[in-house]
Amino acid sequence: MTTDILIINAVLLPDPGSPWGTDQSYVAMKNGRITGTGPMAALDDFAAGERIDAGGALLMPGLVNTHCHGAMTLFRGLADDLELMTWLNEHIFPAEAARVNPEMVYWCSKLAAAEMLLSGTTMVADAYFHEAEAARAFSEAGLRAVAAHGVIDFPAPGVPDPRENIRAVARFLDHWEGRDPLVTPAVFAHSPYTCSPETLMGAKALAKERGVRFFIHVAESRGEQGLIKNPRGASPVKHLEALGVLDEQTVCVHCVWVDEEDLAILARRQCKVVLCPQSHLKLASGMAPLADMLAAGIEVGLGTDGAASNNGLDMFREMDICAKVQKLRTLDPVGIRAGKVLGMATAGGAKVLAMAEGAGQIRPGSPADLVLVDLNRPHLQPFHGPDLLVYAAQGSDVTTVIVNGKIVVRDRRLLTFDLEETMTRVRKLAEALSSTW
Amino acid sequence: MTTDILIINAVLLPDPGSPWGTDQSYVAMKNGRITGTGPMAALDDFAAGERIDAGGALLMPGLVNTHCHGAMTLFRGLADDLELMTWLNEHIFPAEAARVNPEMVYWCSKLAAAEMLLSGTTMVADAYFHEAEAARAFSEAGLRAVAAHGVIDFPAPGVPDPRENIRAVARFLDHWEGRDPLVTPAVFAHSPYTCSPETLMGAKALAKERGVRFFIHVAESRGEQGLIKNPRGASPVKHLEALGVLDEQTVCVHCVWVDEEDLAILARRQCKVVLCPQSHLKLASGMAPLADMLAAGIEVGLGTDGAASNNGLDMFREMDICAKVQKLRTLDPVGIRAGKVLGMATAGGAKVLAMAEGAGQIRPGSPADLVLVDLNRPHLQPFHGPDLLVYAAQGSDVTTVIVNGKIVVRDRRLLTFDLEETMTRVRKLAEALSSTW
Repeated sequence: MTTDILIINAVLLPDPGSPWGTDQSYVAMKNGRITGTGPMAALDDFAAGERIDAGGALLMPGLVNTHCHGAMTLFRGLADDLELMTWLNEHIFPAEAARVNPEMVYWCSKLAAAEMLLSGTTMVADAYFHEAEAARAFSEAGLRAVAAHGVIDFPAPGVPDPRENIRAVARFLDHWEGRDPLVTPAVFAHSPYTCSPETLMGAKALAKERGVRFFIHVAESRGEQGLIKNPRGASPVKHLEALGVLDEQTVCVHCVWVDEEDLAILARRQCKVVLCPQSHLKLASGMAPLADMLAAGIEVGLGTDGAASNNGLDMFREMDICAKVQKLRTLDPVGIRAGKVLGMATAGGAKVLAMAEGAGQIRPGSPADLVLVDLNRPHLQPFHGPDLLVYAAQGSDVTTVIVNGKIVVRDRRLLTFDLEETMTRVRKLAEALSSTW
Repeated sequence: MTTDILIINAVLLPDPGSPWGTDQSYVAMKNGRITGTGPMAALDDFAAGERIDAGGALLMPGLVNTHCHGAMTLFRGLADDLELMTWLNEHIFPAEAARVNPEMVYWCSKLAAAEMLLSGTTMVADAYFHEAEAARAFSEAGLRAVAAHGVIDFPAPGVPDPRENIRAVARFLDHWEGRDPLVTPAVFAHSPYTCSPETLMGAKALAKERGVRFFIHVAESRGEQGLIKNPRGASPVKHLEALGVLDEQTVCVHCVWVDEEDLAILARRQCKVVLCPQSHLKLASGMAPLADMLAAGIEVGLGTDGAASNNGLDMFREMDICAKVQKLRTLDPVGIRAGKVLGMATAGGAKVLAMAEGAGQIRPGSPADLVLVDLNRPHLQPFHGPDLLVYAAQGSDVTTVIVNGKIVVRDRRLLTFDLEETMTRVRKLAEALSSTW
């Protein structure tokens, strides 16, 4: 049997609910998919293109970041400790108007890709302007991406005339559909308070016609409802429901301020939901009712949001804070367990992004998106079980990353591009920003 | 001029409120103290025992972890996602009764010391049983420690007869007072619900007589008040006030459930307060009113608590979660800024632990407890300012650690003891634990 990559002596992350054990296994991959796995004793004589000895490290499915604005790494830490609307209107929107261009999106998305890959994320759902440059950066970096082009009702980077906003996305879809095995194009309508009903319906109609995911920020802050022009419902979710843009291809990002009726609508329409717990804390948006969402049967993913409101893209930290903060909502430490959050960040995220069956798991047929975690570190010892991946591990514990059957990080080093060059480019862009700010 | 260690080409963390800049400086140390600092251009010809070229890395005061139970690394991840009293009574107390002995405390405290040093903590306030073994471990590791011996009203490790509990602490103080420049002994009364009024008064009298810090868990969970036997006040804080154990040497740990009157008492008595935000989340204890404490003029430090309720000892993560979660309490992102939290984790923590004047700052005369942070990492670029130490840095960004003028971590490697041996010892102790659990 021939195989592209063979990992040996790995401790596999068990499926949720399965017992934890430290027996070592092998995993074989070919043509971007896992082809076989089993205990080391059962390892046949594979002719492997590349052999990785995990040496007892933990092998887990790659983390899925279901919401990010990668290019916003440029604004990391530029405007901290501010209220959402002040942050957006007085800092982020003006900085974006002045500074976002294709070159910026390319280099800053590449920096984001490096940060994500080095911390164990193998797939991202990105949403921004000049998204073609982001898609190009992710593909070159070897990071799997759903790349969603932005739609908004004011002049935006690359789309100076808002009347052209839907046509611009259509051209983006034309270009990227079926072009790159790592890139799936999609539509991103910014929000119900920055897009008119007509824009929202037009953007959704395009997404429907092309059969792609439709992302939208919804119910992020308490004050959002009052900002919606021509409201057609009592809440942001009901407004979107009245416009007919909610269905199984719609991914509602944030959903911090949703009530029981909103959740019933999201569940009935089979919408996907994405929480960004760190961004929700840092912008003081609030705590999303995760337990209620899960009880309603909604598929929920985790996202880091952009680096301007977080300020990092490490999904390990996102899992930790999600699990811990959810205990606060009801002062119930039992409701959302670590394993549940780990599932949201892997197989759950893959479902939110409509990945192939088996994604986010380690089994024959699954996409070969895998991560090795070094457990032999003082903060992970003793390792009583995988809860520690949520409550103690950090991105820097990741040693090896495989995306689509290709090794992109090995021994904590990025193999796909020159990280120093990218950091130098981004620093240069940031200097210009600071000096004219 | 001669000096023990000379750091060159370092970017210094500015004092809170001072502007951020990337000009490079030198810092000279001798006999455990900083002796000089200034811009590189002003560097005189030092004869240095050891020269460290920071190469543009950020130099900051070491982090001060003001509450930890180091030996509890043994129980890291053993019993997650449980309510505080279930966790304590059904898991932690029985595990401690069966497993805590001098050998366990020595090796597991040593593991904790490694984890803390490698993530930039230069001083810890530890509280446990067999604390002499913890003090020995910290001293050998080169970690500065306030080591507080436990007092509780039931049979405890090393103190099988609770009637001996205060005498046991007295013997501990006898042994450690003035013995080791890195170790300051202290008293730790577990809580008002596990110590009788007589025990609390006796332990405080001993601490007063010796002039040492008196630590106590107070108002951690909503239900605590109902657990206090012979309550002498309407709240845990008022109970302690009525017993006369609150003064400027008392460190009240947790203080999640405190009202305005409690805060007024703590402020009037000049008590110190320690928050453990991650532990408060993970055990669903709640959110402490930090802004109110600071407004009342109370000195507040940050602590990680033990690894069983966190599950790590990384103060960078603790700062991040503290700053983010406090924004949630009042949905005000502006109230507690990153710089304030950074101050709590450095100079503020040093004040809570009664360190010498100048501790937690970089100036001539300050203790030489310093940390170099590598900023040239994708998750810290671009580096618009020190907020990123709170919102994006992680312990693994620390490259070099100096405690009391001695290099204890260099190039991310611990220099003071054999970490592999310690991890092996702790794993062995943990195996025994799992197999008999």
